[in-house]
Amino acid sequence: VFITLFVYCYKKNTFDKMPKYDIGIIGGGQLGKMLIEEGIRYNVSYATLDPEANSPASPISHHHITGSLNDAAKIEELVQQCKVTTYEIEHINIEAVKTLADSGHKFIPSPNILEMVQDKGLQKQFYAENNIPTSPFVVVNNSSEWLPALHQNNFIKFAAKLRRGGYDGKGVVLMQTSEIENDSFSIPFNEPCVLESFVNCTKEISVIVSRDLKGNVQCFDPVEMEFDEVANLVTYLICPAQISNKVKITSYNLATKIVNQLDAVGIFAIELFVLEDETVLVNEMAPRPHNSGHHTIEGCYTSQYEQLNRILLGKPLGDTSIAQPSAMINILGSLDFSGPYILFGEDEILKMAGVYIHMYGKAQSKPNRKLGHITIIAPTAKEVKEKADYILKTISIQPN
Amino acid sequence: VFITLFVYCYKKNTFDKMPKYDIGIIGGGQLGKMLIEEGIRYNVSYATLDPEANSPASPISHHHITGSLNDAAKIEELVQQCKVTTYEIEHINIEAVKTLADSGHKFIPSPNILEMVQDKGLQKQFYAENNIPTSPFVVVNNSSEWLPALHQNNFIKFAAKLRRGGYDGKGVVLMQTSEIENDSFSIPFNEPCVLESFVNCTKEISVIVSRDLKGNVQCFDPVEMEFDEVANLVTYLICPAQISNKVKITSYNLATKIVNQLDAVGIFAIELFVLEDETVLVNEMAPRPHNSGHHTIEGCYTSQYEQLNRILLGKPLGDTSIAQPSAMINILGSLDFSGPYILFGEDEILKMAGVYIHMYGKAQSKPNRKLGHITIIAPTAKEVKEKADYILKTISIQPN
Repeated sequence: VFITLFVYCYKKNTFDKMPKYDIGIIGGGQLGKMLIEEGIRYNVSYATLDPEANSPASPISHHHITGSLNDAAKIEELVQQCKVTTYEIEHINIEAVKTLADSGHKFIPSPNILEMVQDKGLQKQFYAENNIPTSPFVVVNNSSEWLPALHQNNFIKFAAKLRRGGYDGKGVVLMQTSEIENDSFSIPFNEPCVLESFVNCTKEISVIVSRDLKGNVQCFDPVEMEFDEVANLVTYLICPAQISNKVKITSYNLATKIVNQLDAVGIFAIELFVLEDETVLVNEMAPRPHNSGHHTIEGCYTSQYEQLNRILLGKPLGDTSIAQPSAMINILGSLDFSGPYILFGEDEILKMAGVYIHMYGKAQSKPNRKLGHITIIAPTAKEVKEKADYILKTISIQPN
Repeated sequence: VFITLFVYCYKKNTFDKMPKYDIGIIGGGQLGKMLIEEGIRYNVSYATLDPEANSPASPISHHHITGSLNDAAKIEELVQQCKVTTYEIEHINIEAVKTLADSGHKFIPSPNILEMVQDKGLQKQFYAENNIPTSPFVVVNNSSEWLPALHQNNFIKFAAKLRRGGYDGKGVVLMQTSEIENDSFSIPFNEPCVLESFVNCTKEISVIVSRDLKGNVQCFDPVEMEFDEVANLVTYLICPAQISNKVKITSYNLATKIVNQLDAVGIFAIELFVLEDETVLVNEMAPRPHNSGHHTIEGCYTSQYEQLNRILLGKPLGDTSIAQPSAMINILGSLDFSGPYILFGEDEILKMAGVYIHMYGKAQSKPNRKLGHITIIAPTAKEVKEKADYILKTISIQPN
């Protein structure tokens, strides 16, 4: 009787602590929303943590916790209810995640990778130490170190990036050494930064790479980016990228080398510079689904979101081939106002074939805020581009 | 002050009665689930009514009411909270819906159409009265009327269908007049039935037709069905159907004529028989998304579910063109057991390109219960068929 009672108590205790949800997501933004969308047909249950009660993901999350991504107690509350936890944003309390991982909770990707990626200095050092080609760089701790470092490295034109906390082009400034020397531009950051020599690239491309728990790797076809130089944001991307087969193979090899070297499990976006001579340099990586992979939902047989779900659930990787050429347009908040908004021109583009509007459900527009995106698919790249050009002319975010 | 107070009270009252959800769905099965799935990227909110608290749609519905679809009070509770209401199943309390429609609540499709479709006798009469070709039929009220009616109409082989309440092949029996005459088969129904003369068709096809509030009509490409004769259920369908252009045009014309004649708004499945001489007969219709349109999620630029969302929201109809040839396989409960189950072979087929598993989240398997479906897309119909054949050999529903 004593033993039975003990077993009963033990089992009850175990049962009470059994995670209720399949997947936890730290962050409840659009990336989390689309991860959930792509898991519904497998009946996956999700819990999310986000500072906003009405985040994009929360209406379709099975359980939403409202709290700061820096709040260790809230992160623990999430993680304890989930069989495995992932993150859809880098800026989270990494110490809390590491402590929970040490006590046996399952995270994909591993917090060590997130910790490295969170710090653009560590990230660049990782590339340098592993012979992964990247642009020349120097790490500085405060503004007084800038000029000596720039002179020592002979940087003329460079990108300054905050080591921690930057996103969507924030925390990144493109400038010239002479502008500091002649005081026409003051040093924008006093925090630790990476200064990267400007490289004259002909193309910026991105490879989404997936790696499962068994170490299988699948790359998605490279996509080619068009940047809005003012916002320093991707506004348009096209897949497949217009690159040589040599560049394509090189980009696959680099992406694969990075995830293998890190023993990284999950979905990773590897942003690459392609130079005139077809040299390929790694710009930076993200340890999560990425804006440059949105087109995979309609354009590829398996999307980056489905692929991450498969990895989190221990299912085989899906086929990442292109189903049809595609383009992706970010729907960004207008520079002219903040507040409630409408997508003007929506009905016009809904009439087009192969046009998919994804709105993230954000109540307020802000300048350059990512409010949604549009994917365009068509049998040929030419048709895709024509449709994308028409859409760019037709839609706008306007006050409601 | 008095006027202000009055206006305030009036507004508050109006606000309290403002419907909270965009779309109400009577029924919470897989059709409702997929309707919701396809509305998430537009941030549509849904409320559902279903007898089961854990119906396929309820985990992703924003508000779920557990109750019988015959319960007028529950239907009213749903409808009052929604801007517009639709149904994903025919067997609902039509009187309740008509009363609510009369008091100003918006239903798509109109309850009149549902009322006609619910009764296979009225449906056949509608076709006959409107010169819409359909197989010869006779309506009987009880079993004593069968033999006289069969003799009078010279039916040798026929299908007997319950006028009301049949679904998924239930309430339908194929038999011969001689079997009744010689008592080898007793009359299966004493309720009102339609007896339809057997037609020797070479193909069964289906056209999903959409019609919006402005009267615009868009047909999806016809799909061709393969039946499991034991279960009398579609097990496999392929799109595009292998039919002549003449048959295709005829099927579009029939589908369009039906929805125009009925002034019907919504999504309708028109099931058709194609005879040896390319005559096309209307078998029956459903006033909702249909099993024979599941493939449109991945195979067409706009799915039947997105199309219905657009109609419900007053958005323009989407382009219904085929993106890639597709096939759809129903995942049916094994005849051998009832209870918890697994989809055996799932991991094997997840490795294939262009294969999409949709599980409906039903906890228990029952013989022939629709537990899910698989869509296959590929650049050619040949590849689609090869994959479908492989999948049919590979998967099975097994006890868990």
